[in-house]
Amino acid sequence: MLGPRPLSPVLLFGLVPIATWFVVRPLLDPAPPLPALYTSLGFSVFAFISTLYLVPALGPTFVKANLKGRDLLKTYHTPIPESQGLICAAIYILLLMLFIPFAFSNVIMNFASDAKVHEGISIVQFPHYQLSVYLSSLLSLLIATLLGFLDDVFDIRWRHKLPIPIIASIPLLMVYYAERGNTNVVVPLPLRSIFGTLVNLGPLYYIYMSLLSTFATNSINILAGINGSEVIQALIIALSVILNDLLYLPWPVDFRIPVHLLGSKAEIEFGGVWSAGMAYGSKEMVERHLFSLYFMLPLVAVCLGFLYHNWYPARAFPGDTLCYVTGMAFAVVGIQAHFSKTLLLFFIPQIFNFVLSCPQLFGLVPCPRHRVPRFDANTNLLHPSKVLFQKAPPKLTKITLRILAVLGLTELTVHPNTGEILECNNLTILNFFLFRFGPMNEKRLVQVLMCSQVSGSIFAFVVRYGLAGLVYDGDRR
Amino acid sequence: MLGPRPLSPVLLFGLVPIATWFVVRPLLDPAPPLPALYTSLGFSVFAFISTLYLVPALGPTFVKANLKGRDLLKTYHTPIPESQGLICAAIYILLLMLFIPFAFSNVIMNFASDAKVHEGISIVQFPHYQLSVYLSSLLSLLIATLLGFLDDVFDIRWRHKLPIPIIASIPLLMVYYAERGNTNVVVPLPLRSIFGTLVNLGPLYYIYMSLLSTFATNSINILAGINGSEVIQALIIALSVILNDLLYLPWPVDFRIPVHLLGSKAEIEFGGVWSAGMAYGSKEMVERHLFSLYFMLPLVAVCLGFLYHNWYPARAFPGDTLCYVTGMAFAVVGIQAHFSKTLLLFFIPQIFNFVLSCPQLFGLVPCPRHRVPRFDANTNLLHPSKVLFQKAPPKLTKITLRILAVLGLTELTVHPNTGEILECNNLTILNFFLFRFGPMNEKRLVQVLMCSQVSGSIFAFVVRYGLAGLVYDGDRR
Repeated sequence: MLGPRPLSPVLLFGLVPIATWFVVRPLLDPAPPLPALYTSLGFSVFAFISTLYLVPALGPTFVKANLKGRDLLKTYHTPIPESQGLICAAIYILLLMLFIPFAFSNVIMNFASDAKVHEGISIVQFPHYQLSVYLSSLLSLLIATLLGFLDDVFDIRWRHKLPIPIIASIPLLMVYYAERGNTNVVVPLPLRSIFGTLVNLGPLYYIYMSLLSTFATNSINILAGINGSEVIQALIIALSVILNDLLYLPWPVDFRIPVHLLGSKAEIEFGGVWSAGMAYGSKEMVERHLFSLYFMLPLVAVCLGFLYHNWYPARAFPGDTLCYVTGMAFAVVGIQAHFSKTLLLFFIPQIFNFVLSCPQLFGLVPCPRHRVPRFDANTNLLHPSKVLFQKAPPKLTKITLRILAVLGLTELTVHPNTGEILECNNLTILNFFLFRFGPMNEKRLVQVLMCSQVSGSIFAFVVRYGLAGLVYDGDRR
Repeated sequence: MLGPRPLSPVLLFGLVPIATWFVVRPLLDPAPPLPALYTSLGFSVFAFISTLYLVPALGPTFVKANLKGRDLLKTYHTPIPESQGLICAAIYILLLMLFIPFAFSNVIMNFASDAKVHEGISIVQFPHYQLSVYLSSLLSLLIATLLGFLDDVFDIRWRHKLPIPIIASIPLLMVYYAERGNTNVVVPLPLRSIFGTLVNLGPLYYIYMSLLSTFATNSINILAGINGSEVIQALIIALSVILNDLLYLPWPVDFRIPVHLLGSKAEIEFGGVWSAGMAYGSKEMVERHLFSLYFMLPLVAVCLGFLYHNWYPARAFPGDTLCYVTGMAFAVVGIQAHFSKTLLLFFIPQIFNFVLSCPQLFGLVPCPRHRVPRFDANTNLLHPSKVLFQKAPPKLTKITLRILAVLGLTELTVHPNTGEILECNNLTILNFFLFRFGPMNEKRLVQVLMCSQVSGSIFAFVVRYGLAGLVYDGDRR
């Protein structure tokens, strides 16, 4: 029997005053330059506490409503509550809604704007049109939650559910259109002689946006199967986005990054309160990244809270709901705060997993319902799971698999006499890890996944702030 | 066995061109004065068709996902798909989202605004802040849908779910607050010597708004139990709201209503394109009632489509989802278009049912899980269902029941010797109808409910446009 993970009441009593202080901080004199950010931090702490306590508290209710699953990679048969990402999504969206007056109302922010701002960029209230953008983002998140939950209840076959996030991105697209959003993209330096500096993608930009939502959502959803995998990905991507956002805020200190070591010509200087780091004094850039922080801080909070219960051995499963809502949150900030290319760089393990999965996703290689690694109950180790070919696979499949095997991405079992392919590993990054690094237990595997995600993010920062200078000039988006 | 109700393909092929014409009409020369209203009408026809075809098509999926119920008032045991209001809600909200560019984008509406407007009030584009209001309304509807569906899945005890609509009203309240919405109310003439013409309710206004959501939602939800009851109520209320809205549009004709017959001093004149009927030339009033129409037209469409399958004997059940989303839609238009008092007048049967239910809602009288009438399989008639008192009820209960019995609202069975109350009818309007008009079959009972709702609306119009002149002057809200 697997009971809920214990929770110390000290945590509750310790964190509530801290959270409260952050929420009320903007109303205390002297007002900070970014008052709503304090409130957002406070709300995030509340989100963390709520998730931490509500997930185990509502577990039995989920099990009773038949939202439960057996952990496939364990010896025990305890039913684990499934779809509990719904709790995270509910807390997340509720707090984002309650945050509206703090970010957009000049009633609450009056105090902050009346107070003397000492120096630097101070964002006491968002421009009015931003409220529509914020609300359309909430709508998209809510639709993603609803559709994710419907997916959990109705158990939609996953080839059919690939386009679901497009529906969730409709509010984003509609409001972007109604607000006559910018559909120009900056052309990389080598192509400027052909296309000019800016290209107006027009309707293509809307397709790009909905594909981004689809990718962000599904790429997390298909990198799943072991305890903690979904939420760990979301957590590290969200932390990377936050780190990227922080570079654009008006910090009181002034520091530089030695990017010349990476081959870039100029040093990058993060300059004090007036230039606001990478924003180079652009108030609009600061606002965009604040917008992103408002969505990412509580996301990190609910992911952290949920991870506590989802960590090996898991007491709660996220269901598709969590993947949908986190994926949509990333798409929202990428689109609305205009850093979708940087965002995609944080998805390197997901892109790898997606590309690797393509032969199975598009029917070249048979795709079972679950592609989770195979569990050996005697050794407690995971091994790569296999696809068995009942009959000789078609030619295209053979070629694809041979190429993947040569690249060291999958393992083939070949008939000793005929040379016919008998089986191959399921094409996922998890099976790839198990194939390359050898069998390991589930906890170790999720740690490997975590490391790959962190390495991916480090690489992303190097590319974004080191190498991007080679193909883009100062006009960085 | 009960198969799905047949659908003629003629309907599909007949209605699609009509709907398409309405959607594209604003782009044809000459542009009509209210172009988005045409699109809304077209979308509503699409909503009707989609509901009509999707409800039976998705029935088996719902049954498979265990969202099914037995019809309690029938002899057969065929499982009927439950919670199918979800389909209505999904179609409704999706179309409201797709409608955004038509109502708010000057890209699409450019044509209409460029075209020469011949005469009268012409609303080619909504003011910008209205987009936030529209989006917050969508958020509230979506939350109501999600919570309604969660209620269906988790089967929340209904005394616990009374406050759920308050959560759904949060986006409304937050945006109302951030936009510094008006919290003044017009004081009735007799009280003006005390309070003045306008009273600023401040925070009380927000409480009023959330209570309105709670009431609109739950009052429909508790008037349920027989085939078609929920959707019939929603349909007639929505039609009444539409009729009320139409009085404020710039009609080309000019007519008057003989309100002097009802005791009012002045005639009410509906005057042509410039004065826009009851709007008396106020463009803002026209906009408000257009806003209401945009939400009510597709609601009528999905309700009609659903009613076809929910009509006696029902092939589909609405679940709580339908009640939540329709109730929230009424609250949204009442609040955002500022006619909440008029709206409440359309809820007369619901108010009656709510007041009658109070002793059971608040625990004075025991409340069983279902309060549906009792079905007599031999005669196919419904009788009032009874509450049995195992032991003598407490004094307050006795007094309440005696009063209700004297008023003819419930029927008591009294011990012939001791005079002790042994049983009473369940306190609902349906049992009241059965008690007053005698046993009848289910179809007749829903027709009686329908008539009471229509009579309620007629009475509401008489009060609103006849008698309101006695306590309010021209400044009608």
